[in-house]
Amino acid sequence: MSIIQGINSLRSVRNFKRDLVPEEVIRAILKAATRAASGSNSQPWEFVVVRDPTMKARLTEPMLRTWLDRLGGGRRMSGPLKEVYDDATEMLRNTKDVPVIIYCCFDSNRVSKSEEVRYASIFPAVQNLMLAAHAMGLGTCLTVHGSTSTRGEPEVKKILSIPDNIKIACLVYLGYPGVKLGPPRRKPVEELIHYDRW
Amino acid sequence: MSIIQGINSLRSVRNFKRDLVPEEVIRAILKAATRAASGSNSQPWEFVVVRDPTMKARLTEPMLRTWLDRLGGGRRMSGPLKEVYDDATEMLRNTKDVPVIIYCCFDSNRVSKSEEVRYASIFPAVQNLMLAAHAMGLGTCLTVHGSTSTRGEPEVKKILSIPDNIKIACLVYLGYPGVKLGPPRRKPVEELIHYDRW
Repeated sequence: MSIIQGINSLRSVRNFKRDLVPEEVIRAILKAATRAASGSNSQPWEFVVVRDPTMKARLTEPMLRTWLDRLGGGRRMSGPLKEVYDDATEMLRNTKDVPVIIYCCFDSNRVSKSEEVRYASIFPAVQNLMLAAHAMGLGTCLTVHGSTSTRGEPEVKKILSIPDNIKIACLVYLGYPGVKLGPPRRKPVEELIHYDRW
Repeated sequence: MSIIQGINSLRSVRNFKRDLVPEEVIRAILKAATRAASGSNSQPWEFVVVRDPTMKARLTEPMLRTWLDRLGGGRRMSGPLKEVYDDATEMLRNTKDVPVIIYCCFDSNRVSKSEEVRYASIFPAVQNLMLAAHAMGLGTCLTVHGSTSTRGEPEVKKILSIPDNIKIACLVYLGYPGVKLGPPRRKPVEELIHYDRW
């Protein structure tokens, strides 16, 4: 699969087969992640790879509870956004059946204090992770459940024994895809480019 | 170039040929960027593509000044970090000769207020941008000069007439590479993986 084909066909997969993902495949994907650039080559990334069903069940609770709390906040939705949210809820409920959950973290002590630099030093690696997984026939979904203060991060860190100086940037759900999705729908790029000034 | 080859060989290029980059190539690269996922498919990205030499000269001033101020802060460096910083300074000084500078932004009004979601909705697109450019024989370098409050963002936004609700997440320098670099040096991935708990 070429880079451009991979980029054009990568979609968020929220429906996975139960097949396990071999450890050497997980390692290869994470190796690809860590080829990314990072601020001053700080490489602040750390990955917690969860496959244990009991652990997944424990992690589901704070992630699902905080998500349902948010949804219960009275926001009325319809159309495409409702679909996205319903899919997200369904995936969260089925967390224990997702073969692998990767908590993508950075060590606050190993990277600049600027939020721009911090996230610039983890999300390019996460995109590498998802593209490499895609190249190997795996599906992924990036989510922030369990990675923000209002989405259960404190509870998740406690369950995973993650130290205080480690920040969870996001999660990636990983497994062999249970669905085949077409190319993503996106706005025309011409609407988003400004030449030489806004 | 396969995805894995591309990921493994992508390096930060800080030395560019003066050759111009055709507009259709820039558009293709930015189209690849916008195939990325974003929070609730919000697609909050906006790109300011600077090619005008006068504009590049004006932008250099606040970016270089704030960078030299930081370096002058008394930090003594040696070894690999000093090399990274010297290269960064050199690239900044030569900004006007870099064919294209892409200010990668997001619209705060079109995305969640969580910093995790915001940056998760721009940096995967930026990584796509750099990988697609690499596939097309171009070199890139992600920097945060001009994209944080202490690195000249307010002045840069003023020069580019960027509205208040638009946040610059990072810059990508783009052009045909003046150097050929080997694969990146990274820590062994085994040191960064934790199975089932920290």
